[in-house]
Amino acid sequence: MEPAVKYRLIKKDKHTGARAGELITPHGTFKTPMFMPVGTQATVKSIAPEELDEMGAGVILANTYHLWLQPGEKLVEEAGGLHKFMNWDKGILTDSGGFQVFSLAEHRNIKEDGVRFRDPVSGSTMFLSPEKAIQIENALGPDIMMSFDECPPYFETYDYIKASVERTSRWAERGLKAHQNPDWQGLFGIVQGAGFKKLRQQSAHDLVSMDFPGYSVGGLSVGESKEEMNRVLEMTTPFLPEDKPRYLMGVGTADSLIDGVMRGIDMFDCVLPTRIARNGTCMTSHGRLVVKNAEYAHDFNPIDPECNCYACRNYSRAYIRHLLHVNETFGLRLTSYHNLYFLIHLMQDLREAILEDRVLDFREMVFEKYGFNKENARNF
Amino acid sequence: MEPAVKYRLIKKDKHTGARAGELITPHGTFKTPMFMPVGTQATVKSIAPEELDEMGAGVILANTYHLWLQPGEKLVEEAGGLHKFMNWDKGILTDSGGFQVFSLAEHRNIKEDGVRFRDPVSGSTMFLSPEKAIQIENALGPDIMMSFDECPPYFETYDYIKASVERTSRWAERGLKAHQNPDWQGLFGIVQGAGFKKLRQQSAHDLVSMDFPGYSVGGLSVGESKEEMNRVLEMTTPFLPEDKPRYLMGVGTADSLIDGVMRGIDMFDCVLPTRIARNGTCMTSHGRLVVKNAEYAHDFNPIDPECNCYACRNYSRAYIRHLLHVNETFGLRLTSYHNLYFLIHLMQDLREAILEDRVLDFREMVFEKYGFNKENARNF
Ligand SMILES: [Zn+2]
Ligand SMILES: [Zn+2]
Repeated sequence: MEPAVKYRLIKKDKHTGARAGELITPHGTFKTPMFMPVGTQATVKSIAPEELDEMGAGVILANTYHLWLQPGEKLVEEAGGLHKFMNWDKGILTDSGGFQVFSLAEHRNIKEDGVRFRDPVSGSTMFLSPEKAIQIENALGPDIMMSFDECPPYFETYDYIKASVERTSRWAERGLKAHQNPDWQGLFGIVQGAGFKKLRQQSAHDLVSMDFPGYSVGGLSVGESKEEMNRVLEMTTPFLPEDKPRYLMGVGTADSLIDGVMRGIDMFDCVLPTRIARNGTCMTSHGRLVVKNAEYAHDFNPIDPECNCYACRNYSRAYIRHLLHVNETFGLRLTSYHNLYFLIHLMQDLREAILEDRVLDFREMVFEKYGFNKENARNF
Repeated sequence: MEPAVKYRLIKKDKHTGARAGELITPHGTFKTPMFMPVGTQATVKSIAPEELDEMGAGVILANTYHLWLQPGEKLVEEAGGLHKFMNWDKGILTDSGGFQVFSLAEHRNIKEDGVRFRDPVSGSTMFLSPEKAIQIENALGPDIMMSFDECPPYFETYDYIKASVERTSRWAERGLKAHQNPDWQGLFGIVQGAGFKKLRQQSAHDLVSMDFPGYSVGGLSVGESKEEMNRVLEMTTPFLPEDKPRYLMGVGTADSLIDGVMRGIDMFDCVLPTRIARNGTCMTSHGRLVVKNAEYAHDFNPIDPECNCYACRNYSRAYIRHLLHVNETFGLRLTSYHNLYFLIHLMQDLREAILEDRVLDFREMVFEKYGFNKENARNF
């Protein structure tokens, strides 16, 4: 059987681990590296599917945990799956719910069979297991699914993380067996292991032996430093097969995206661009811009004069600031649109750089302009 | 000098006072009768200008009172006027701020020179007069401006309303003198007079003698019955010139729009379609539909199966209900889009009926389907 999702490596940068490739899914073929907008509740906050398409998004992410609770995976299945439910005919990736169970849920009780927890919204007791997560993801019907993994705190003892990695491998195997639709849904394994080289390699080795169509790197962007994240990527990606896609979960700053790609990552997702957009913060080619600030009240330039997005082509900082100040949702549409466009196009530009073996120069240029080279550089 | 805004009467229905015409403005020519979406704060809540265009909106309304307070008319002028500020190149109409001063403001003190009041947001004392309103509207730069009128309560004594009508006429004349841009901004007079035939006629007579390029009917949709509103229109429009547009302010239910057109009205505006959309209420060809209700949880039909709007072509009631339940703004975009489209297209269909002398049949068909003929029919 052909896997549902395939990766084609087109070119590696001569000087770094950066890869230009493409991801072939049941809903189209998409160029990598790429940034995936997050549509937690079957909608990318304030943005229409046509707008995602227009800004160049090939794959978006939806959250299994949230959709399981509301509206429920059965309803989505009844609607004909997530693509039809939300009117999006390109790629969709769902996480497994693991991250939310380990970060949001209350009264968590982790056992070998799965995790029992209290839903903070309804107050009711819920149970998520490798099989249950896969069953939900099968019902939701995304192109790419994640295995249910244990997400331990980053700074734990070696023994604690080792036990957790081994459980994640056992859970991955159970998920693989439970998966009903391998012909049209690609299930990824998630490499864990915190900051321990030996455990990252053990995790990678376990999962690779199960021959997933793709691999995620999990347990990062949870409070560790950027240097630490890069170190972990360097000791992980060499142990992943070259002919499979690698997905770094929950990372969405310009510097981390570039640094991740240089270490062999192909796919990223993060709520950051839409979350900060709702506070009036924009990512621009010259760094962070808080368009809500008073200094932009009479500024009739676009958010980013070097950006060609819908928001920047048509609206001024002064107008967007006004909208945000009077709580008009159209302001959030514009800042969200811009931020997503910025990261998607950053990855497109980086891909060009890979094809021309100038990734190091590209990194230097972006970092210098954005301000990442400054002392006390802002995080995003 | 040619007036900035002209009306061309194309056809009158044989059996009613309904008129098909067109409004010629500095930002395009638009077919009447028409419904104008309200963009209070220089944005139609949650809707992009391109979407307004796509749904057939020719003219939108913005509120002088709100824009005066935030971001201030000077900023809008500095931006190049409302059209440029908000990226809308079709018609814009502004009210005078009078209605808001009389309905929202606190500690109101009405004198002959104008109205002193406390802004409920900032707490500061403000002053609005006929000259000040015109100065603000000149700075905002809409195609159509309203005179500053006194908006008395509907149920007041004859003497009270008579004094108010006479003041409104004096204020209209002062506004006309203060108006700086009659070559590219058309100023309308507002007929007042509550439910008193003699006063409505006196008001119409006063304003018509000043030769405004258009006339509004004000002081309605403030708590009086629909029958009462129709009665007032019947005693007002016959005293307005046939070659000028007539605008009924603040009316936005399907039945009142049709009944208004039958009494010679050409233009309407109301926040109703977008306001109820935000509560999950939709206007459909078969009546009001509260898409948020539990009965639509598994309903995969569009909001209105007879509607061809973006929301109805692409999304189900079940999906929209889900979005509203989890507080996703995209849900409000879809219900707002649909409701505006519904009223705009209702007016387009009514125009066809006028051209074919079948307005009475059209009214009967719409009323029967919508449920307006039922006892205890819902108001919208
Ligand atoms: Zn932009
Ligand atoms: Zn519709």
